[in-house]
Amino acid sequence: MSDFWTKSGRAVVFDDDDMVDIAGATLDFSSTDDVPPLSSDMAWSRAGANGTGPGSLMDPLEDPVPGLGTYEDFNTIDWVREKSKDRDRHREVRVRSRRSTAALLHSISDAFSGWLLMLLVGLMAGALAGGIDIAAHWLTDMKEGICLDGFWFSHEHCCWKSSETTFKDRDRCPQWQTWGELITGTSEGAFSYILNYLIYIVWALFFAFLAVTLVRAFAPYACGSGIPEIKTILSGFIIRGYLGKWTLITKTVTLVLAVSSGLSLGKEGPLVHVACCCANILCHLFTKYRKNEAKRREVLSAAAAVGVSVAFGAPIGGVLFSLEEVSYYFPLKTLWRSFFAALVAAFTLRSINPFGNSRLVLFYVEFHAPWHLVELVPFIFLGIFGGLWGALFIKANIAWCRIRKTTRLGRYPIVEVLAVTAVTALVAYPNSYTRMSGAELISELFNDCSLLDSSQLCGYLQVGQTGIGNSLADRPAGPGLFTALWQLALALLFKMLITVVTFGMKVPSGLFIPSMAVGAIAGRLLGVGMEQLAYYNHDGLIFKGWCTPEADCITPGLYAMVGAAACLGGVTRMTVSLVVIMFELTGGLEYIVPLMAAAMTSKWVADAFGREGIYEAHIRLNGYPFLEPKEEFEHSSLAVDVMRPRRSDPPLAVLTQDSMTVGGVEALVESTRYSGFPVVVSQESPRLVGFVLRRDLLISIDNARKRQDGVVGASLVVFSEHPPAQAPDGPPPLRLRGIMDLSPFTVTDHTPMDITVDIFRKLGLRQCLVTHNGRLLGIITKKDILKHMAQIANRDPDSILFN
Amino acid sequence: MSDFWTKSGRAVVFDDDDMVDIAGATLDFSSTDDVPPLSSDMAWSRAGANGTGPGSLMDPLEDPVPGLGTYEDFNTIDWVREKSKDRDRHREVRVRSRRSTAALLHSISDAFSGWLLMLLVGLMAGALAGGIDIAAHWLTDMKEGICLDGFWFSHEHCCWKSSETTFKDRDRCPQWQTWGELITGTSEGAFSYILNYLIYIVWALFFAFLAVTLVRAFAPYACGSGIPEIKTILSGFIIRGYLGKWTLITKTVTLVLAVSSGLSLGKEGPLVHVACCCANILCHLFTKYRKNEAKRREVLSAAAAVGVSVAFGAPIGGVLFSLEEVSYYFPLKTLWRSFFAALVAAFTLRSINPFGNSRLVLFYVEFHAPWHLVELVPFIFLGIFGGLWGALFIKANIAWCRIRKTTRLGRYPIVEVLAVTAVTALVAYPNSYTRMSGAELISELFNDCSLLDSSQLCGYLQVGQTGIGNSLADRPAGPGLFTALWQLALALLFKMLITVVTFGMKVPSGLFIPSMAVGAIAGRLLGVGMEQLAYYNHDGLIFKGWCTPEADCITPGLYAMVGAAACLGGVTRMTVSLVVIMFELTGGLEYIVPLMAAAMTSKWVADAFGREGIYEAHIRLNGYPFLEPKEEFEHSSLAVDVMRPRRSDPPLAVLTQDSMTVGGVEALVESTRYSGFPVVVSQESPRLVGFVLRRDLLISIDNARKRQDGVVGASLVVFSEHPPAQAPDGPPPLRLRGIMDLSPFTVTDHTPMDITVDIFRKLGLRQCLVTHNGRLLGIITKKDILKHMAQIANRDPDSILFN
Repeated sequence: MSDFWTKSGRAVVFDDDDMVDIAGATLDFSSTDDVPPLSSDMAWSRAGANGTGPGSLMDPLEDPVPGLGTYEDFNTIDWVREKSKDRDRHREVRVRSRRSTAALLHSISDAFSGWLLMLLVGLMAGALAGGIDIAAHWLTDMKEGICLDGFWFSHEHCCWKSSETTFKDRDRCPQWQTWGELITGTSEGAFSYILNYLIYIVWALFFAFLAVTLVRAFAPYACGSGIPEIKTILSGFIIRGYLGKWTLITKTVTLVLAVSSGLSLGKEGPLVHVACCCANILCHLFTKYRKNEAKRREVLSAAAAVGVSVAFGAPIGGVLFSLEEVSYYFPLKTLWRSFFAALVAAFTLRSINPFGNSRLVLFYVEFHAPWHLVELVPFIFLGIFGGLWGALFIKANIAWCRIRKTTRLGRYPIVEVLAVTAVTALVAYPNSYTRMSGAELISELFNDCSLLDSSQLCGYLQVGQTGIGNSLADRPAGPGLFTALWQLALALLFKMLITVVTFGMKVPSGLFIPSMAVGAIAGRLLGVGMEQLAYYNHDGLIFKGWCTPEADCITPGLYAMVGAAACLGGVTRMTVSLVVIMFELTGGLEYIVPLMAAAMTSKWVADAFGREGIYEAHIRLNGYPFLEPKEEFEHSSLAVDVMRPRRSDPPLAVLTQDSMTVGGVEALVESTRYSGFPVVVSQESPRLVGFVLRRDLLISIDNARKRQDGVVGASLVVFSEHPPAQAPDGPPPLRLRGIMDLSPFTVTDHTPMDITVDIFRKLGLRQCLVTHNGRLLGIITKKDILKHMAQIANRDPDSILFN
Repeated sequence: MSDFWTKSGRAVVFDDDDMVDIAGATLDFSSTDDVPPLSSDMAWSRAGANGTGPGSLMDPLEDPVPGLGTYEDFNTIDWVREKSKDRDRHREVRVRSRRSTAALLHSISDAFSGWLLMLLVGLMAGALAGGIDIAAHWLTDMKEGICLDGFWFSHEHCCWKSSETTFKDRDRCPQWQTWGELITGTSEGAFSYILNYLIYIVWALFFAFLAVTLVRAFAPYACGSGIPEIKTILSGFIIRGYLGKWTLITKTVTLVLAVSSGLSLGKEGPLVHVACCCANILCHLFTKYRKNEAKRREVLSAAAAVGVSVAFGAPIGGVLFSLEEVSYYFPLKTLWRSFFAALVAAFTLRSINPFGNSRLVLFYVEFHAPWHLVELVPFIFLGIFGGLWGALFIKANIAWCRIRKTTRLGRYPIVEVLAVTAVTALVAYPNSYTRMSGAELISELFNDCSLLDSSQLCGYLQVGQTGIGNSLADRPAGPGLFTALWQLALALLFKMLITVVTFGMKVPSGLFIPSMAVGAIAGRLLGVGMEQLAYYNHDGLIFKGWCTPEADCITPGLYAMVGAAACLGGVTRMTVSLVVIMFELTGGLEYIVPLMAAAMTSKWVADAFGREGIYEAHIRLNGYPFLEPKEEFEHSSLAVDVMRPRRSDPPLAVLTQDSMTVGGVEALVESTRYSGFPVVVSQESPRLVGFVLRRDLLISIDNARKRQDGVVGASLVVFSEHPPAQAPDGPPPLRLRGIMDLSPFTVTDHTPMDITVDIFRKLGLRQCLVTHNGRLLGIITKKDILKHMAQIANRDPDSILFN
């Protein structure tokens, strides 16, 4: 039997899924959420979608019967209908614009509303990102000490205001005191250190507790990175409240807290979620976007670009990220608008200037030396490392998330978060590279050492002629550097382990920064190794010719950058957008080739262990109905093998066009759970006439019984154009042609499934009917396809939970 | 009557179209072209496309009956079948790879062949572009003089080798002599000037004559920019020989000649054509791409990116250009590969170093001053200018091309080219800004004046304190600058007029450089105007506060750049790719906002006068069957309004599944010109069974008559699975189920045309059958849709020439 409508209630969802508490909490919460959820008060007329056809009963600009044409929560939208509906609306606006000046102005404002919306999304997301950056800086520093001039200053701000400090020593000024210094009066001594250590852990635990409690109390959807869900939503799924007002507020606040608590997580993924929330909320200002699920998803695609744009200060990279990684339907118009919104957001962020350096980008890097072709070998090696780590991370993280779901661990999210935070703080504090925030760490690792650099990583020995020659020439490593290398190696191990258990906890958590940090540490270690190798073997076989003693031939910072790209690529499987984001950070085309080589190697290596990136893996873990647009359908099955009913099933439940009564229809609907019914000519001649959705049918019959005289159980339900001749004393027939989809999609039973999957993907279908020689045979839904694909891949087909 | 197959012969094409001579010459030429044309020796099995279905008779890796499944010239491919065929092939390769090590190696090499192909395309296109650059430089200089050290040196090369010149005066050295100097012995005097003038014109005419003659003699397809045709080919059309070996050679040589002749044309569009030729030729090395039209088009999309990448040194911009402007089907895999190929090509070009400055980009610009928000007003003004000019240019150019087509002018292409060259050379020589090549002109206009700059455009008066202060501060204009402005104004007028008649002549001609030149001149003029306004009114209302006397507040070079973007945007309607290309030239994110503002304004203004860019306008002029993916179908017609047969037409020609004889089928095929026939159950019950292509039907019957015993005119043609019971003495039936498409696409008669158009676009269909309640009603082809769209737009539906 076709389970075209299996989800009888949300209880099904609660029992066996990670979404249990999320969805459960939403239910409690939805009563307090006054923001219209993702698709509320959205109503459209299926008849309208049929244009001027005989079924067109309603005006596309007016609201028809309430609820008609809307979707249930946790269901998939029908892209074709939504887009057709928007075209009807647009046509109507255009026709009316010829009638009056007011309508003309409305038409013009309608045409520009998309751009205005983009402007607003850019401004809002940029402002929020700036606020998050500033707040996270402040709270992160709060863990270590306080500014005597005012507790609201971050460490950096505090010392800016101080006149007693130079730019070089800007992290040391009398106004800023660590907690230990404040209490004991001295910054020296074991007691002060231990005091600092303890207070650091206490703050971290406090922030983490606040974050997880707020998430649980106000918006369970605010946890995680949000990108898997946004991918699913963009592909046409509906999750009410996921992009609502409360999610936005909670995510913004808890993101700051989670980042400040020192956990191994970043804010880049969550920023995409925040930007999408902004876009979804702002959509409510414009009828065009409020009422159309497809149009709204175009805006959300652009918002995803905005999120990455503000996260890294890379607008072009953001647009490509949305195109490559997140979006499902990305027409050219969206490309232009995404680009515009990403630029607006980037400039809003720059004018807020959260990093205090007028830079747009998160890690500004400037390298002084070109790279040599031989260096491609270590770069590709980094790519292999990134790919291996990416594949391993995904497997480990998914396994851990499964443990969380299936064991008692999942019931105590607050305990889990606190435990991980405690371990992180305890281990991270003594090592300066783990104590600093992920973004700071990456910045330091990307940095190219100049002679004056006081950082430990630049602890080289000074040799030879001072003043003359290349001040950036390779130098031998000194004791400072050796210490740094040890600390980095330990930090690498720690980050690799802790990130696996951190990602997926019930706090907002991005994966970009931790992944990049792992790669950057590995890259820097390799880079320094190469540099020392080159210094001591500059006449050796490999280095001879391009690495003279006084040349700056190896740039360890570049290795860190390449390593970061490789690891991020291994985890997310991004390629072009990753390289472009990195390109925007450096602005030098020369470094594209190393980045490209590493990103490609990393993708190939990681793909060898499993084709899914971390986001796809989480989508599958949650059982969302996501039809991966990248993956080719390789199996050779036919439509007839996938369609319902199967051979052993009872026959397909169909309506006939003019021979069923209201009572008969109601009985059929009651006895099944399908979300839609094909309408055929008659039971004897099952030739397809149209398709009716269960929801529309129930609403219409209900409506007719209430408002229309004479509609009783014995009334004939007529879907045909001309009702059949009837006895004059019988009740008047109920004509429902208006709610019937007159153009259902059909394929023949012999259609190969690869073509069918292609049609589903490209057109964004919910269901498709199967015919043989013109007779209706069965139905294929998106869920059937996903189940079939799961079966082919030897996975549990019942892991696909939604329609 | 449906004209699903109107083109009975190419004579139809010749009579009323711009393609007359092109197509005509191809016919003559095709006999000498030994390169397999775009889709020769390509054979596939429709049965194979149906996977393991009952119709699967042939192995996808072997060649079936020759010709089966191939396409005629000037026809549209079926994307769905081609892709399905490739999936079958891939599946087969994978299955075999499990059997033996050799097959496994083949499978691996198959997987990487795409990347290898991209590498080769990048290398070849990069090398060719480098060669073209060097040769064009040399020949351009040849018009003015000669190097005494060797005639094969260009002016710049010649003076590099000279030790008597500094870098600043690198255009003056004793080794380089103008023709006048060489003959009269002095560079002064009217006689020498006139001699130079005359020799300049003679060279120009010689180059132009050579170019147009070579094009006519060897490859008529080599003329024009090639982008409209490439867009059409990428959308699924077949033009044999358009991307062949001879076209490549001829286009490369004549492009050099055309650019050197001093005509107002660029080499950027033709470079895209050259790169696509390289890709097409290299595709023949790999079975996977040689035999599949869809796969080959993926490679061609990447090649278009390569073309722009080498033209401007902008790999990311090139990829976005291909995505935004040229490509039809651009999956993510193609995005990665395009990016890779574009990078390889850019680096190949850089290692050839044709500009002699190690720069990757064509115009390297570095600006020193930021822009102020007030400047957005002139930038938007430039956008309006660009939009107006773009719209006007398209209208004028199309009108001129129509005149060429309809009057006697079209019969004398050589005379036309020579006349335009003569006028260009005559007018261009006296004005130094028109005499220099377009690329040089743009470079000079983009340049920011430093104090030491000796160019006329930097002829400012020196004022005030020397040495101290900002050396780039705004200064008052001097006499040199005034002369330059006059010359620029004249150059602007001239370029605007001559480009209209130049683009579309029978020589290779790109439009990027002339358009950018027009915009750059206008921008520079406005920029200098603004600068002087600011200098003399620095306390005025507008400039107060941000434009102090000693500040460098206006950068005229930036205005030139914004103007160039605006004009190019107006002509081509590019937006994101345009901005990204410009961004790659400067590398500064700050200037994206001005560029974006200008590009957007330009697009909006130009769109108000007509939605088509120059390439779409030329596609329509040539009657190619191109279904614009950007434009929305706005009309509210239904499938039943568009399908054939119309109400007054005779009924649809159909085959029945098991009741027609070979003779009957042949008679039906003979009496019609349709390219395909639906197969139905019977004449009385027209329920759809499948679809057979005319070409496949004819080949199969022909093949069967030759090879299969007992096939005579009275043999039954059977498309059904089980042949009907037959008299034992009759001839054996001819079973043709194998060539029938068992999964033809259908829509119902009530399907709105906007949805139908969407299906055609997204799936790349050739035709679609229309049903009503399961009965076959008619057929819609791509051509029917294009005709319908032309009719709605009040254009002549017969202007659509091809299927």
